[in-house]
Amino acid sequence: MTQSPKQLNLNAFLMGVGHHEAAWRHPRTEAHRVLEVKHFQELAQIAERGKLDSVFFADGLAIGPRVEHNTQAIFEPITLLTAMAVVTEHVGLIATASTGYNEPYNLARKFASLDHISGGRAGWNIVTSGGEDEARNFGYDETPDHAGRYDRAAEFVDVAVSLWDSWEDDALELDSETGRFADPSKVHTVDHEGERFRVRGPLNAPRSAQGRPVLVQAGSSESGKNFAAAYAEAVFTAQRTLAEGQDFYRDLKARVIKAGRDPQSLKILPGIVPFIGATEDEAKALEQEFTDLISPAYSLRQLSRMVGVDLTEHSLDAPLPPLPPIDEIQGNKSRYQLVKDLAENEGLTVRQLIAKLGGGRGHRTFAGTPEQIADEIQLWFENDAADGFNVMPPYLPGGLEDFTALVVPILQARGLFRTDYTATTLRGHYGLDRPESRYADRRHAATA
Amino acid sequence: MTQSPKQLNLNAFLMGVGHHEAAWRHPRTEAHRVLEVKHFQELAQIAERGKLDSVFFADGLAIGPRVEHNTQAIFEPITLLTAMAVVTEHVGLIATASTGYNEPYNLARKFASLDHISGGRAGWNIVTSGGEDEARNFGYDETPDHAGRYDRAAEFVDVAVSLWDSWEDDALELDSETGRFADPSKVHTVDHEGERFRVRGPLNAPRSAQGRPVLVQAGSSESGKNFAAAYAEAVFTAQRTLAEGQDFYRDLKARVIKAGRDPQSLKILPGIVPFIGATEDEAKALEQEFTDLISPAYSLRQLSRMVGVDLTEHSLDAPLPPLPPIDEIQGNKSRYQLVKDLAENEGLTVRQLIAKLGGGRGHRTFAGTPEQIADEIQLWFENDAADGFNVMPPYLPGGLEDFTALVVPILQARGLFRTDYTATTLRGHYGLDRPESRYADRRHAATA
Repeated sequence: MTQSPKQLNLNAFLMGVGHHEAAWRHPRTEAHRVLEVKHFQELAQIAERGKLDSVFFADGLAIGPRVEHNTQAIFEPITLLTAMAVVTEHVGLIATASTGYNEPYNLARKFASLDHISGGRAGWNIVTSGGEDEARNFGYDETPDHAGRYDRAAEFVDVAVSLWDSWEDDALELDSETGRFADPSKVHTVDHEGERFRVRGPLNAPRSAQGRPVLVQAGSSESGKNFAAAYAEAVFTAQRTLAEGQDFYRDLKARVIKAGRDPQSLKILPGIVPFIGATEDEAKALEQEFTDLISPAYSLRQLSRMVGVDLTEHSLDAPLPPLPPIDEIQGNKSRYQLVKDLAENEGLTVRQLIAKLGGGRGHRTFAGTPEQIADEIQLWFENDAADGFNVMPPYLPGGLEDFTALVVPILQARGLFRTDYTATTLRGHYGLDRPESRYADRRHAATA
Repeated sequence: MTQSPKQLNLNAFLMGVGHHEAAWRHPRTEAHRVLEVKHFQELAQIAERGKLDSVFFADGLAIGPRVEHNTQAIFEPITLLTAMAVVTEHVGLIATASTGYNEPYNLARKFASLDHISGGRAGWNIVTSGGEDEARNFGYDETPDHAGRYDRAAEFVDVAVSLWDSWEDDALELDSETGRFADPSKVHTVDHEGERFRVRGPLNAPRSAQGRPVLVQAGSSESGKNFAAAYAEAVFTAQRTLAEGQDFYRDLKARVIKAGRDPQSLKILPGIVPFIGATEDEAKALEQEFTDLISPAYSLRQLSRMVGVDLTEHSLDAPLPPLPPIDEIQGNKSRYQLVKDLAENEGLTVRQLIAKLGGGRGHRTFAGTPEQIADEIQLWFENDAADGFNVMPPYLPGGLEDFTALVVPILQARGLFRTDYTATTLRGHYGLDRPESRYADRRHAATA
């Protein structure tokens, strides 16, 4: 077995009984499992057996008319990942949470709690909540504008990091002889007075085993990329071709360097929806089975949201109508651009577009043998398009079982992926240094 | 075994390694366990072996200077109870959460998630967050006034209940044949437009096994009692004598009736801190061991917070100085009144007062044999002072183990407490009806 110095990072992006929008209607799944916490606990255990870095849940703060076909509206990610944390020992646990409709103190604390419960395995996928239906659940008539959401996100993250750092690593004494729980001189107020938040601190939780949760981000707009370059330690992204992946990778790493950071301190993980078969034909036939189960009414509603145009009455066999300019899109700009490019460059009808998007909502689907999938992963990894992958099984648990049992061993044999965990924290799996507390730095500076 | 028709409700109020403020310094505890999720999972399992209704965590949204001696600042209750939910099957799980510094949509959703993960065992202890140190973590210079906090709480709870009810019980179809996840006609917008909140809904979670989480409350001020009468299904309260307990019980039940509710739909659970010994002398000697470990500096700080006067430089052997009138107290009014009465009626020095408060911060301590403790519980229960008790073990896990192994069997033998669970939900343990969705009522009204 050869050992490559650089190793892949692999995250399992989990969603109900699978990413394919018709997954829950396919005989390879059991639909009722979307309601069962044991299902999700088993998924975490499968990911851990496969030595994956982490599991991850997306999230939104509204349901609305999509309720007819949306199988996700049951659990909240931080609580669900907590239930998964206590039946695993290594795998990282990444929850999506919004900077738009939370208070920094509350959210920092919930992540600190997950980080303590899991022994340092928490990650936060930072989203700004671009949906109008979300805004209406929090007292707003419309979505705050895109740039303003990112300004708020930046201030929010800054406060959260200060709160996580407000206890120095050695602040906790827990000394029953002296009766001291913590050294107050090592527990700091934050005294944040910003444009949007005023937070005194300290947080009511010590630092965790990994110092603080890993910061993850998934927006690929200009604001999104600049935000990622400044703060993120991992980025999930939808890239459809190697060339596009390379462009994104080059662009984002350059921004990271410009922000004064080591480019290796941010891991770029494109999404991949793998349909795995013993032969390529078998894999493609499996994908077609799922495509055939797509509900056009649901897909048209999803597509309408992505492009900002009501397509629910649009003909399935016509191309997309003209789309609004990207400047008018206040929601997910990167997903809008991806769908627009896909429809225009490949000249697809709406029906064809829906089939392409059904597997992973714009993320790349790949149907092939385990070897072909491993080859594709290696190709991107070794050609500066990816530091690893955000694996999005089209159906669950089977799709994750197959990936870990069939694809991972090939990557391991090629020396591209760990054969066992060498760390116990998510930060450790990513090979990231454990950050010192901001306040410890100040103390060192003061005594230098 | 005689079987009484009316049965006790018993909740285990958990706190670190025990309620006594010096618990973590006593050899019966292991201080480091305050950091271990397994410790709390074991406590839930002990409570479940004892057939208790529920376990419960208090909470606050700040730590401040108390950090030197405060062992609680580690976990957040909803996440911690989630970790406990997945290793138990019956015991209820009650988390404290604030209406002051949360958004109704977010909090309703987190409790819905805990309720789904636990199979219908979640309860919410509603607090309004009266601490100035809490206010400063959320952009305020001082605590919002007492009455205003309760107005906000009432609107908040109303929105939360509407959100939990926004899916009718049979809204979820999960029909893979028809491709319908839910029936949109049974998932309702909430369209709340109030003084403090505007929330459209619906919640992105179906109804739980118990319909919605059980509402719990613990304030005993006028506003607190009126709030409880309107909304609460269980009330935790600090009552030091049978006569005081009867007064409170009579008063609150009258308010419940006045609010148009069945008085049995609200359970009144006074706190009790039991020191259990084979003989009364042994129990009292054990209590004294804990008292001797109290750190006066910490206790003076706690007492200062309770009475709104800085006592940190006050002599331990003098009585309390004059206290401000209750109208000037913006924090916990009921705790203030209890401490004031205790000091004045019993003519205690500050040192004596600290010893009295050390066991349960004003809750009643009782040192005796298992029989004596069972007698006391029965006395209150049969003389209209309590529907059950909020059991606050002074040290953990030992104090809870002893209560469930030694006191519970006596109560069971007397027919006062269940010998096994007859329900799987917290609402079921309390003997409360499963509420119909508010929206189902409207549908029935419309079709009547």
